[in-house]
Amino acid sequence: MFKATVIIKRRPKILDPQGKAVEQGAKLLGFNNVSHTRIGKYIEFTVNTSDKSAAEKEVKEYCDKLLANPIMEDYEYKLEKA
Amino acid sequence: MFKATVIIKRRPKILDPQGKAVEQGAKLLGFNNVSHTRIGKYIEFTVNTSDKSAAEKEVKEYCDKLLANPIMEDYEYKLEKA
Repeated sequence: MFKATVIIKRRPKILDPQGKAVEQGAKLLGFNNVSHTRIGKYIEFTVNTSDKSAAEKEVKEYCDKLLANPIMEDYEYKLEKA
Repeated sequence: MFKATVIIKRRPKILDPQGKAVEQGAKLLGFNNVSHTRIGKYIEFTVNTSDKSAAEKEVKEYCDKLLANPIMEDYEYKLEKA
């Protein structure tokens, strides 16, 4: 069994409206030192297999087909034996 | 200047409907080994100050007041000199 953690970010050149909106809120609340806020996803899950390479394959497929948008987002993952 | 990264997760006992929905999709697509999917947020931003303790204070306040929901979510952050 493996515990997988995936971080999904928009590609650097792609606008992040959610981050922009949060940052406007920040300015209104007086956070004047904060800038370049970008919001991505952090996903955790368990892969029920004992074979690391099979687990890795499944994580990649899960990201490619379901978790990340391959057109706008990049992802990185970590696998840990659980 | 510091680069901050924040990970925000729902508390373990709080239901994560988004994760559940994604996992249902996973089952339909044939990912039978994947379970316990939980979806959180990954946020990056820049703090424009040279003083590390001031930066840390600002990051905590930004998380407490704007980024995280203190009732349902926990956060952890990292600060790196940029």
